[in-house]
Amino acid sequence: MHLNPLFGIRSKAGTWALAGIFFLLLGYMAQAQQSDSLLIRRLYSAALTEGKAYGWLDYLSNQIGGRLSGSVQAEQAVEYTRKELESLGLDRVWLQPVMVPKWVRGTTEFAYIESDPGNTNNVPICALGGSVATPPGGLKAQVVEVDGIAALDSLGREAIEGKIVFFNRPMDPTQIHTFQAYSGCVDQRYSGAAEAARYGAAGVIVRSMNLRLDDYPHTGSMSYGELSLEERIPAAAISTNGAELLSTTLKLNPDIRFFFRQSCRQLEDVPSHNVIGEVRGTEFPEKVMVVGGHLDSWDLGDGSHDDGAGCVQSMEALRLLLSQGYRPRHTIRVVLFMNEENGLRGGRAYAAEAQRKGEEHIFALESDAGGFTPRGFSFDCSDAAFEHIQSWKPLFEPYLVHQFTRGGGGADIGPLKPQGPILAGLRPDSQRYFDYHHAENDTFSAVNKRELELGAATMAALLYLVDSQVGALTDREEGR
Amino acid sequence: MHLNPLFGIRSKAGTWALAGIFFLLLGYMAQAQQSDSLLIRRLYSAALTEGKAYGWLDYLSNQIGGRLSGSVQAEQAVEYTRKELESLGLDRVWLQPVMVPKWVRGTTEFAYIESDPGNTNNVPICALGGSVATPPGGLKAQVVEVDGIAALDSLGREAIEGKIVFFNRPMDPTQIHTFQAYSGCVDQRYSGAAEAARYGAAGVIVRSMNLRLDDYPHTGSMSYGELSLEERIPAAAISTNGAELLSTTLKLNPDIRFFFRQSCRQLEDVPSHNVIGEVRGTEFPEKVMVVGGHLDSWDLGDGSHDDGAGCVQSMEALRLLLSQGYRPRHTIRVVLFMNEENGLRGGRAYAAEAQRKGEEHIFALESDAGGFTPRGFSFDCSDAAFEHIQSWKPLFEPYLVHQFTRGGGGADIGPLKPQGPILAGLRPDSQRYFDYHHAENDTFSAVNKRELELGAATMAALLYLVDSQVGALTDREEGR
Repeated sequence: MHLNPLFGIRSKAGTWALAGIFFLLLGYMAQAQQSDSLLIRRLYSAALTEGKAYGWLDYLSNQIGGRLSGSVQAEQAVEYTRKELESLGLDRVWLQPVMVPKWVRGTTEFAYIESDPGNTNNVPICALGGSVATPPGGLKAQVVEVDGIAALDSLGREAIEGKIVFFNRPMDPTQIHTFQAYSGCVDQRYSGAAEAARYGAAGVIVRSMNLRLDDYPHTGSMSYGELSLEERIPAAAISTNGAELLSTTLKLNPDIRFFFRQSCRQLEDVPSHNVIGEVRGTEFPEKVMVVGGHLDSWDLGDGSHDDGAGCVQSMEALRLLLSQGYRPRHTIRVVLFMNEENGLRGGRAYAAEAQRKGEEHIFALESDAGGFTPRGFSFDCSDAAFEHIQSWKPLFEPYLVHQFTRGGGGADIGPLKPQGPILAGLRPDSQRYFDYHHAENDTFSAVNKRELELGAATMAALLYLVDSQVGALTDREEGR
Repeated sequence: MHLNPLFGIRSKAGTWALAGIFFLLLGYMAQAQQSDSLLIRRLYSAALTEGKAYGWLDYLSNQIGGRLSGSVQAEQAVEYTRKELESLGLDRVWLQPVMVPKWVRGTTEFAYIESDPGNTNNVPICALGGSVATPPGGLKAQVVEVDGIAALDSLGREAIEGKIVFFNRPMDPTQIHTFQAYSGCVDQRYSGAAEAARYGAAGVIVRSMNLRLDDYPHTGSMSYGELSLEERIPAAAISTNGAELLSTTLKLNPDIRFFFRQSCRQLEDVPSHNVIGEVRGTEFPEKVMVVGGHLDSWDLGDGSHDDGAGCVQSMEALRLLLSQGYRPRHTIRVVLFMNEENGLRGGRAYAAEAQRKGEEHIFALESDAGGFTPRGFSFDCSDAAFEHIQSWKPLFEPYLVHQFTRGGGGADIGPLKPQGPILAGLRPDSQRYFDYHHAENDTFSAVNKRELELGAATMAALLYLVDSQVGALTDREEGR
């Protein structure tokens, strides 16, 4: 019988030596797991006791405000976050130029339901981002209510021509993940105008993407697709209460008129920037990990949840790691992307430059789902990598972070996907997100300090685990 | 060889028959699990689409308001919830008499820090529940700041006599479960006055049990223990911002005076009621399951989170089960307990009557941790029962309910414990709870409709599982 030279040792001393090696290994592994959990504990404690995220968000929200691409506020936010990143003692902070669309809302929108001539009810609306204006005196027309784009075809041009199409499919309240309810509705907002225009509609009113009944209209991006400038029709969101009122009124009398007036317009593209801060890796400086959110927001509120929270959490995640004396093995970049909301130019520019320079991105994490209690992450990676990631669950359990799911990472980091990094997205509690999303009430006061901080610590913990165990992930990743 | 008559069958037909039985069993089990998950899905959908909890809470909070034991509002709440329970078509709704303490706040409290004579800063305070009044003209004295009760002994009578003791130990922000941070501090509020009085203190000011820095003083129960009426000293809570200001001022000048005035007092006990609604079990009507919250609240806010939410969720949990055509095998009682906050008389009276009547309580579930996104339950039961309960985790996974921990059920159901039921407590997300707890801002607007509804559905799902599988639980429970 051939014996393996090592395992063949039969002497007592040899047996003890083997046992010793075995227990040393076990001890080493236990120690590694323990040191992981200790560092993670310190990250959370630091976030909760001397965190910077909330103060940064206060400034972004209350001193700067809504940061629509191309606005003065967006440029103020670029300047502010660049300075704050510079104060963190990173290896390098820079601005990456990117041309962005500039759409302006103009004067406050106005709308009413006219049940009879002179008998009107004002309702809260706002122009959708990218929409054209109404004629200066406004647009008044009959209304045809539909529950989605598919209904246009069955109604046909005759029923639609010259009218305002009212897209009124609500978000499905039975969805537990509210983002799924959003996905099931948002085509009305994004493509409703382009589709209705094909049937000769004069304008479009879309029920706000909000699970709650309230008085805030929620804006958001829309596209005219291939329509020429002349073919474009104005599109606005109406608050959920307004939508209910309009729908009820239509049921009583389908002949009522709807009036709305908006003076928004699209200007020429303007220069702006992604804001980037980097710490060079001690072992693999050429391998890059990204953590980020988007610095632009809509203009109605302060953009505190969407996505001021994600920006300050990203900055904080890196700051937390450094504050605990951790020096990453791989280069970690905080990237505050410009123009996620209405163009994704920042995300595309970042990925394009990475591609051009031949940079190797191994991991990217985005926070763009609000500053609420963190519940977990979604991962876009191979099965094998996901399996390894799931072995980290016990490390997150003490922080009540339980959800490790497959799914997209985030819009801004999406363009990196062809380059093969593992993509991840922070998944906070989603129940309140659409109460504020793209609306006037997305303000600093809607963000809870601890919830924001817990999210930042959760991101820092994931960055740490990826940085320290990326070998196990990327070996597996190559198999995908 | 002796063969078991069934398993000894060796014929082909017998083998097929056995396989058939096996697959029938498997099929039955799979079907049972599937029907569990379908019913649970329907409970959540019903809660989210045609739930009653939010409307009930609106009435309790906005039409009735704070429901301190012995107050008119508490009695209005008894009447309102009794009527609402009667409208649900239960088998029986009744009021259980209970004598409750009646403490009244009197005129609004007033306090200031006097740095020099005539140089004062007003600070927000409120009397602690159960405190005596200050003299009618108020109490002004030097202040000695301590970080807890233990510090009194090292300071000694000389340093304390005639002064106001300022308990300023903050809640520990590094605790992820905020209730643990609360537990680590609340002795200052509950026993601080009794302990300080032993050293001759003139009064007590306690930092509010709040993780946030803000301007709301948070009340809560306190006890003088064995102190005679003459020995009692007035005790008030100060807002966290006020506590920071007082502490900072003391560091600059330990000689400053603090003034406060309050006119609260304890009156004679008055009659009140627990509100109980019951559906009789179809199979085991003599075995009782309880679901409840407490109807009383503090008086500063509306008591929406504490514990209006728990009351309406308990009512809703039973309503949801019935609305889905489910008829419980065991008797289920909704119990809205009176006087949790400052006496626990309702919980004690309920348990005492159950004991007196020889009622068999097999399970009790309380919701008293706010109307936030449900994260799980804590269970007070045997190891074996807990093991079976954990087998339900996959059924809750789609609703992002992950935490199944050991721990207490709730204050009101605690007195049932000697009678042996499994006790459970709903565990919602706790990050924001102490922002509102016992303070003026615990109002309806602080409750999110979906979060409240998800909690109710989660409770209904647990009631269903216990009711349908209680055999497995109680068999195991007997081994404890």
